[in-house]
Amino acid sequence: MTFPDDHLSRTTRSMGVSFIREMLKATKGVKGMISLAGGLPSPESFPSGILGGLFKEVVETDGADVLQYGPTEGDDVLKRAINIHEGEADVPLDRLIITEGSTNAIYLFARSVIDPGDVVLCESPTYLGAISSWNVMRPRWVEVPTDDEGMDPAGLEAALAEHPNAKAIYVIPNFQNPSGRTWSLERRRRFMEIVERHDVHVVEDNPYGELRFEGTPIASLKSLDRRGRVIALGTFSKVFCPGLRIAWIAAENPVYEKLVILKQGADLQTSTLGQLQVNRYLEENDLDADIARIIPVYRERRDAMLAALDAEMPAGVHFTRPSGGLFLWMTLPERLNARTLLDECVRQNVAFVPGGAFYPNGGHENTLRLNYSNMPIERIQEGVRRLARAVVKEMERSETLEEVPATP
Amino acid sequence: MTFPDDHLSRTTRSMGVSFIREMLKATKGVKGMISLAGGLPSPESFPSGILGGLFKEVVETDGADVLQYGPTEGDDVLKRAINIHEGEADVPLDRLIITEGSTNAIYLFARSVIDPGDVVLCESPTYLGAISSWNVMRPRWVEVPTDDEGMDPAGLEAALAEHPNAKAIYVIPNFQNPSGRTWSLERRRRFMEIVERHDVHVVEDNPYGELRFEGTPIASLKSLDRRGRVIALGTFSKVFCPGLRIAWIAAENPVYEKLVILKQGADLQTSTLGQLQVNRYLEENDLDADIARIIPVYRERRDAMLAALDAEMPAGVHFTRPSGGLFLWMTLPERLNARTLLDECVRQNVAFVPGGAFYPNGGHENTLRLNYSNMPIERIQEGVRRLARAVVKEMERSETLEEVPATP
Repeated sequence: MTFPDDHLSRTTRSMGVSFIREMLKATKGVKGMISLAGGLPSPESFPSGILGGLFKEVVETDGADVLQYGPTEGDDVLKRAINIHEGEADVPLDRLIITEGSTNAIYLFARSVIDPGDVVLCESPTYLGAISSWNVMRPRWVEVPTDDEGMDPAGLEAALAEHPNAKAIYVIPNFQNPSGRTWSLERRRRFMEIVERHDVHVVEDNPYGELRFEGTPIASLKSLDRRGRVIALGTFSKVFCPGLRIAWIAAENPVYEKLVILKQGADLQTSTLGQLQVNRYLEENDLDADIARIIPVYRERRDAMLAALDAEMPAGVHFTRPSGGLFLWMTLPERLNARTLLDECVRQNVAFVPGGAFYPNGGHENTLRLNYSNMPIERIQEGVRRLARAVVKEMERSETLEEVPATP
Repeated sequence: MTFPDDHLSRTTRSMGVSFIREMLKATKGVKGMISLAGGLPSPESFPSGILGGLFKEVVETDGADVLQYGPTEGDDVLKRAINIHEGEADVPLDRLIITEGSTNAIYLFARSVIDPGDVVLCESPTYLGAISSWNVMRPRWVEVPTDDEGMDPAGLEAALAEHPNAKAIYVIPNFQNPSGRTWSLERRRRFMEIVERHDVHVVEDNPYGELRFEGTPIASLKSLDRRGRVIALGTFSKVFCPGLRIAWIAAENPVYEKLVILKQGADLQTSTLGQLQVNRYLEENDLDADIARIIPVYRERRDAMLAALDAEMPAGVHFTRPSGGLFLWMTLPERLNARTLLDECVRQNVAFVPGGAFYPNGGHENTLRLNYSNMPIERIQEGVRRLARAVVKEMERSETLEEVPATP
């Protein structure tokens, strides 16, 4: 192609290939590689055994309807099943859209609301996929300080006072990606009190909420929302199968009807067949029981990772202790750089995701994300051992560097 | 929701619900309705009988892989099968992306290239779905005159001379939606000669090319393209099953890599399961033979519609005689309005799509699109009879109106 650069749109001209994506591709399928990098649910959690027969049944009993075009909003049969599964039978079907994974919902929301230069708020750090997706609209990100209890209320107040026209806040209150943190009920209440005083949309993403290893579920922001501020997302990717790409978004008007029009223009509809396959699964099986079976597997893996980290990591390294989900978050001494560490680790056949990419405004290169859901315990233990050795090596190297006087 | 209007993006603030979409929804499932409106392939064309067993097999032999996340670009196995099916085994796999239907490809292309205010060219009329999809980017549409041979070369030259920075041209050279027209080889050559002298992207959409009822296939623009101008789209929606939402786009860099990044942000990937279901079908069955079986069905329906139109329509009504695809295009006397006609027709239980919506700059309200693929012959004949009666009635009414002197 011989086109000049201005034959791309302004957004795409500056868009580069994701470092993380390239890294994941480079490490995928490498023999012996222990990947603590991805966010994949364990294939053991897929009910593969029963799905074959079930998929056959869907076509044979529902016939041509499952193969034909369907409505942009998604199939009402599946929407009803989602309401039942969520225990929220009162979400009107005409406020629910079936999306091609949560990414599709995150994107369509942003497209409906964000113009270039608009301020959007997020936890610090936040989900990398949401950053990339929203960045297509070229917003201005404001990161709100977030600790182990959730988003800091004073920080949120300050951000909204400084940016009274902020369009939206993206949050993952349960077992956040990447930090593994869960917001306390008190923080959720404070958050809702504050946002109800502002004209700001709240996008509550919840891919991991059902993967709770201990304790009791905490009320969603949506359930605390009295003024229609919260747009709620849900997905089957982490508790059923990601390969089917079935998720949903619940929104009030005017956003709801804009989402439908935008989805019509972006992909017309989510697979009819995929929707009805998931629906059949929900009808004939107990998803909650399946989730209950996978939780002990993930809990054991988290325990193994935490025990290994406690045993192996040198002083000065900190990490979160998530009570659910797929990830934990590690903070190295400030002088260390997780990208440099990754280079060394890949040579030792262990991979993770450097944390800098989870901060839309950059920095924090001394952080990293570890996944514990997708590797057996012995591999997790071995992976942490290698990681710890690399961390120690980098700490020593950085100390040596500090001792060497700079060349004049 | 109590938000002010400026809490939507500039694009969506002005976006309204599609008249056609609402009309199709309103007529769908109405008892006795003869719909010549939709663009649905006939369910008889779906190989439902064999798909159940095949879908079972995919899960049982490929296991967890078909249920897990896959690459944003799509699965190489399916890409290879598409190349074989297309007889273009030389399209490099890393220039091909599997999309969620062609709409997804049309949208992602536009997102990668079009900024608000950019000029884009199209046939006049053109596909409504492409208009809606590209309108999200708020381009300025320039319609190029198009006749039964294809896009008018002089008109194209003039448009590109007036708009030297035009970003893209969207075309459907085979059995176009909505007109049913097919470009001659001569016109395709002239088109390519002209665009090769300009830095303009060409999007060649081809959903209907394989549904040829007579004559021999004509070289695609892509096959005539020597300078990487053409971005080619293909889909299984019209020749296999639309409900699976599996299509593809072939593009050179830099567009290709921008499409991948944008798709990652918009929906991460097309269903792994859907892709591998289609792949399995292509591996174990002869899609060309299946298409050969459905063609006589569509041909008979087109013949029946043309014969009924010849017999029933009053003088002054013109229509195209497509040699393939799903649609024909009708032009009424200029004083008639197809939306008014539709109101009358819906009362008579027959529906079609008024043609004005297929012109991005409006006008042409005396045109309409008829679909012949989705109704049995007797229903087509009855539908045309009712339509003709309504046309005659409208013609008489409009004559009466013209005779009445305007009130002063």
